[in-house]
Amino acid sequence: MANTLRKSAKFAFSGVLSRVSIHNGHGRVSVSPCFSLQQRNSSTKAKVKVDLDSSTGVAVLGMESSPVNSLSLDFLTEFCISLEKLEMDKSCRGVIITSTLPKVFSAGLDIMEMYGKSPERCGEFWKAVQEMWLKVYGSDMVTIAAINGSSPAGGCLMALACDYRIMADNPRYSIGLNETQLGIVAPFWFKDTMINTVGNRTAEVALQLGLLYSAPDALKIGLVDQLVPQDQVLTAAQENMAKWLAIPDPARQITKSMMRKQTIDRLLSNRETDITNFVSFITKESIQRSLRMYLEMLKGRKA
Amino acid sequence: MANTLRKSAKFAFSGVLSRVSIHNGHGRVSVSPCFSLQQRNSSTKAKVKVDLDSSTGVAVLGMESSPVNSLSLDFLTEFCISLEKLEMDKSCRGVIITSTLPKVFSAGLDIMEMYGKSPERCGEFWKAVQEMWLKVYGSDMVTIAAINGSSPAGGCLMALACDYRIMADNPRYSIGLNETQLGIVAPFWFKDTMINTVGNRTAEVALQLGLLYSAPDALKIGLVDQLVPQDQVLTAAQENMAKWLAIPDPARQITKSMMRKQTIDRLLSNRETDITNFVSFITKESIQRSLRMYLEMLKGRKA
Amino acid sequence: MANTLRKSAKFAFSGVLSRVSIHNGHGRVSVSPCFSLQQRNSSTKAKVKVDLDSSTGVAVLGMESSPVNSLSLDFLTEFCISLEKLEMDKSCRGVIITSTLPKVFSAGLDIMEMYGKSPERCGEFWKAVQEMWLKVYGSDMVTIAAINGSSPAGGCLMALACDYRIMADNPRYSIGLNETQLGIVAPFWFKDTMINTVGNRTAEVALQLGLLYSAPDALKIGLVDQLVPQDQVLTAAQENMAKWLAIPDPARQITKSMMRKQTIDRLLSNRETDITNFVSFITKESIQRSLRMYLEMLKGRKA
Repeated sequence: MANTLRKSAKFAFSGVLSRVSIHNGHGRVSVSPCFSLQQRNSSTKAKVKVDLDSSTGVAVLGMESSPVNSLSLDFLTEFCISLEKLEMDKSCRGVIITSTLPKVFSAGLDIMEMYGKSPERCGEFWKAVQEMWLKVYGSDMVTIAAINGSSPAGGCLMALACDYRIMADNPRYSIGLNETQLGIVAPFWFKDTMINTVGNRTAEVALQLGLLYSAPDALKIGLVDQLVPQDQVLTAAQENMAKWLAIPDPARQITKSMMRKQTIDRLLSNRETDITNFVSFITKESIQRSLRMYLEMLKGRKA
Repeated sequence: MANTLRKSAKFAFSGVLSRVSIHNGHGRVSVSPCFSLQQRNSSTKAKVKVDLDSSTGVAVLGMESSPVNSLSLDFLTEFCISLEKLEMDKSCRGVIITSTLPKVFSAGLDIMEMYGKSPERCGEFWKAVQEMWLKVYGSDMVTIAAINGSSPAGGCLMALACDYRIMADNPRYSIGLNETQLGIVAPFWFKDTMINTVGNRTAEVALQLGLLYSAPDALKIGLVDQLVPQDQVLTAAQENMAKWLAIPDPARQITKSMMRKQTIDRLLSNRETDITNFVSFITKESIQRSLRMYLEMLKGRKA
Repeated sequence: MANTLRKSAKFAFSGVLSRVSIHNGHGRVSVSPCFSLQQRNSSTKAKVKVDLDSSTGVAVLGMESSPVNSLSLDFLTEFCISLEKLEMDKSCRGVIITSTLPKVFSAGLDIMEMYGKSPERCGEFWKAVQEMWLKVYGSDMVTIAAINGSSPAGGCLMALACDYRIMADNPRYSIGLNETQLGIVAPFWFKDTMINTVGNRTAEVALQLGLLYSAPDALKIGLVDQLVPQDQVLTAAQENMAKWLAIPDPARQITKSMMRKQTIDRLLSNRETDITNFVSFITKESIQRSLRMYLEMLKGRKA
């Protein structure tokens, strides 16, 4: 590690850029999204749809921020407010987080929140990412991810923060923390959540190589808990939820807190430093240059 | 976790009680024991039978506290004294912990030690539970659990504290830390022992859902190390013991201490707080009310 | 653990000695090497051969200290200098560690460095063992172990310190931290590296029993990552290296540091104590006596 800083001049999305140009040459860009580009919708349209069944105490939180549920500041704010409302609602005991869009659960952080933005705004955005994780990972409710599409990077983090993960049995859907593939680093609390889920050694390889796992491979390493046919993801989540709700809430909640408190406290104790680190990295000129090229590549794919 | 306290009014064995009434309606109570009800034997009868073979250096510690090896204060005291004697006996290098009773290894904590007892007595009881775990988990001897029957809750803890677990290959026998199913919480050192054995993610699900695993499933997740036919459990334990005794004691003991010291020290540093927490929880009026109902349910099953 | 010290008079290679005499009786000594006996070569011959391909950025570091790549002070010094040179060479991004000798990757620590040596010299030797681990485990380069032969004890540690392990698919080759089989204890940083690789429970059993795993068994528990036919070990390592080098170095390096820093810092903070412990153990008269007998046994095997 002694030499990491010495060599770090190479940093800054060099991997992305080289890969982009290579793959463009073949007329096909196979880089999986990590940062995603979101169409600018009118901001008045709701990005999260909540459906609470008071008879069962189970809410379905459907992400519907077209086209790929990018985690923008607006989206994250709405997501967290929705979750907080459910948390405060005594009639709600469990929430199923899913996507209402085809083929994607969430494509991860919205690149537009990081490109050409002021340090203050970048900090605000990163705080919202932290807040999303803190709210889901520490929820008193049972949280089940019904992963009905691909879920790279920040989307994977959101799924990992739930109590249970059910994924559509489709080998074309992938999930993983693929940050290093784009030349960036998943922060320590992404890493901690990954280790808590798949163990130290699997996390070590997955995070260094930025591996995206197909649904069947994700099941093998324990990144998800269960695969079901695409059209049964939500039903399976409801059935699984019933098992969790059969347990008295306080005993389950205290047990969950015992398991997760240390990991949560680690971010709470280092929240400001983590924001500072992110902002200082993302606002570097070299990174901004890389983001612009990545952005143009994404636009090129759409065209 | 922020809301755990807010909702905790729901606590107190509500899960047990609702399940009991439901299942009674079907003429069948399928709740697995966690707290168990022990017949009051004459206290003079020995509850632990120790058989030390000086030629091999291996003792068999047979639990024979009829009918289900409930962990009562008397039982735990006798168990710990027996273990301590073996620990001090230089001719003894290994101990096999097993049950002399049919179908059960140990049914866990004795409910009668927690119902209608003074705080002082409850504290004394909990200290004995801690002592049992400290003695087994930190033993210098090789400890092998010959699990020839079901082993929920405290019985599972005792097995987990051994160096190796061999279970009868009978799908009707189950093992697990099922505390949450009864609305109670396995304390942090139960949790730590479980994580050390099956890993963080499996422990997270198992403890929150209070899962009891059939013998084959217990093998799959590593909760036990080996399954053998019912009548070969003890023989297999003896054979396995020979492998451990082929290793020079000091090297094995220091290695064991390196692996377990941190977990043991954590309880040693928090022992009084852990007792206080238990006593304050168990002596609550609402909990005592629930215990009474649970007790009546258990009596009903016998009748 | 309370009694560990009480019984420790039994210590000192008693296990080795008894096993040696038993097995000699059968005309066959099956004790796997842990400490190994190295022929005294002329010290001028290089013990490490480095071959850096500047076009790929990948170096092959071949250990060629005949007959079994024992980790002597000379060998370790040369190994560390070679690695440091590669680390400083900006054209080198990855290193494949392998053996140029038949049937063995490395047989572990050289017993001659511990027998009849002054405390100062023993301390110098142990510091070199620490240095080897620190350099490999904390390398900024991608490190892949191409394990083309057996790799007990210190040889296993070196392989574990790499990012990835590819082993020849030969059931006669074994790998593991078998220290306790010889009556000695793998120090805490051996243990930490093992836990980080195979998890707590597997490490607990493996370290206490000093288990050596055949190549197929090593794959099953995750001690190695991949098996290939003997003659394809190096090719497979080169192919695997390409995957790691596809990731931008800085992102991979920072991620690796996040995963390993805590374990490395633990040795760095306790380095002197660890040396003192080793020297005080190895220079004991009883241990030296055991080493002499072990040495004579090894010489007997050669004759």
